[in-house]
Amino acid sequence: MIKVSLGVDIGGTNTDFAFVDRDGKILVEDRISTRAFEEVEVYLGALNEKVRLACRRLPGKAEIIGIGIGAPMGNINKGTIEHSADLPWKGVVPLADLIRAHTDVPVLVTNDANAAAVGEMVYGGAKGMKNFVVITLGTGLGSGFVVDGKLLYGQDGFAGEVGHTILRPGRTNRECGCGRLGCLETYVSATGITRTLLKILADSIQESELRNYRLNELTSLHISEAALKGDKLAKMAFEHTGEMLGVKLADLVAHTNPEAIFLFGGLALSKGLIFDPTKRHFEKNLLTIYRNKVKLLPSQLNSQNAAVLGASALAWDAFENNK
Amino acid sequence: MIKVSLGVDIGGTNTDFAFVDRDGKILVEDRISTRAFEEVEVYLGALNEKVRLACRRLPGKAEIIGIGIGAPMGNINKGTIEHSADLPWKGVVPLADLIRAHTDVPVLVTNDANAAAVGEMVYGGAKGMKNFVVITLGTGLGSGFVVDGKLLYGQDGFAGEVGHTILRPGRTNRECGCGRLGCLETYVSATGITRTLLKILADSIQESELRNYRLNELTSLHISEAALKGDKLAKMAFEHTGEMLGVKLADLVAHTNPEAIFLFGGLALSKGLIFDPTKRHFEKNLLTIYRNKVKLLPSQLNSQNAAVLGASALAWDAFENNK
Repeated sequence: MIKVSLGVDIGGTNTDFAFVDRDGKILVEDRISTRAFEEVEVYLGALNEKVRLACRRLPGKAEIIGIGIGAPMGNINKGTIEHSADLPWKGVVPLADLIRAHTDVPVLVTNDANAAAVGEMVYGGAKGMKNFVVITLGTGLGSGFVVDGKLLYGQDGFAGEVGHTILRPGRTNRECGCGRLGCLETYVSATGITRTLLKILADSIQESELRNYRLNELTSLHISEAALKGDKLAKMAFEHTGEMLGVKLADLVAHTNPEAIFLFGGLALSKGLIFDPTKRHFEKNLLTIYRNKVKLLPSQLNSQNAAVLGASALAWDAFENNK
Repeated sequence: MIKVSLGVDIGGTNTDFAFVDRDGKILVEDRISTRAFEEVEVYLGALNEKVRLACRRLPGKAEIIGIGIGAPMGNINKGTIEHSADLPWKGVVPLADLIRAHTDVPVLVTNDANAAAVGEMVYGGAKGMKNFVVITLGTGLGSGFVVDGKLLYGQDGFAGEVGHTILRPGRTNRECGCGRLGCLETYVSATGITRTLLKILADSIQESELRNYRLNELTSLHISEAALKGDKLAKMAFEHTGEMLGVKLADLVAHTNPEAIFLFGGLALSKGLIFDPTKRHFEKNLLTIYRNKVKLLPSQLNSQNAAVLGASALAWDAFENNK
């Protein structure tokens, strides 16, 4: 019988999961929509069904040693998701307890970006690093901090919400799902760059192929494709997004002085389009003592799911010796 | 023979030092000006003389087990002070090496706010806390982070320069000694509040007793005294300063999620004048998951020198068993 852990990454749009062996090899993986489920119980029922179906595709009989879940505002101490701006379920969701009601397999919940940081550390570009940060650029902006080789959880398990630092306090009207104005993730994320593009389209009289889309269909991928074809307004959206990210990453360095910052997720796949302006504004805004020291790198797991791998690695560490 | 360590706090204005015993009792203390010495060698010579004089006032013959120094941009790894915006000596100052050329007593150098954080943890209000931050409000704004009971140094020993995060990127002309614009310490510090007051005096046509001072004589103490007497413009300066501090401390919490933040130094002594607006804007700007959880407290060492005590405690820990 093979042993596997189940890694789950709950994102604002989709939920990815995989059965992963001790060496980090993904044996079976699949996904369901997150956004389609307004009630968390219904969502968990659907996820459970998908997981059972995936389980049948495992090569032989398997023992699931544990479940590791990464989710926005996931809390390791309480197994909850609390007041996420990016998920359909509001308030405090007792995720681990809801799952425990249906299974004896042990479960842990952590922040999705923390999971991604563990994935990067165990299987990706942060192998051997002791102080680094992973920034996940998806529906929102997540951040996972590793300090002295360990995840930084903070007093209440909620360290690392850089997506909810304020870009220019008192000088913005851009609403965030968290109820405040001007959070970094309203500018720097897949949805953030789309909002920035809309503003650019409103201000500019230049032509752009992006004007042909229905507004609610427009995604960061369209902007990326247009920019690669030379669309000036799309390139401007990337320039602005990179500037805002670079500026706030310089602030981040002034907090924890990491060796490297990894960018992960859809926007990071835009490569130079996002990395070039981000690096330029990052270095320009760094305090002298930090300049040319902190690496800004693409995740080495961008083609795979860092958070799924990280969540499964956390489950292996936590539950392997349970039985 | 008694054993003592020498704790030194190099501030932008003055340098305080003390001989401290193993229990944290200050046996003899004194200070010299920092600002008066443009050359660091001359400064160290003068400091050395003062220390020798102080040494004679110790009760009996003493063995100095080590020297602990806190300084802005002090680096524990290299024993240097690097590119401090608040000290008269520019570039990289090899402080520990300069001292070692004159004495065999072992010496360590760290950030002054890190030293203050250790002082607060060992002797002050952070006893028993594992995750907290000390903000020092002096000539500049320093910050020392404790994570899981240990000082957060980061990859290069320079973690915790929150005074050099940018308040409103691209929206300010206020020059910082570090060469950039809009650093938090240009607003929130003893000198920062004075600059803010000047701006208020420029904008307002209201009377204020503060208009009677020579500009280069005006200090935060004058503003504090005027505010206590009801001066509206002085109170406005505190309100603005507290707002900016509260907003950026909310950002800080989104990085490391501490249990408490201690305010230390001259401005913190203004009590409600600074704490009331800071707390108000801090809570207002916190992400939901952090609200009403993070304590904002005055340092319990404000009447003593937290950095001197902390630097001496670091020296005790590092050097006690050397001989």
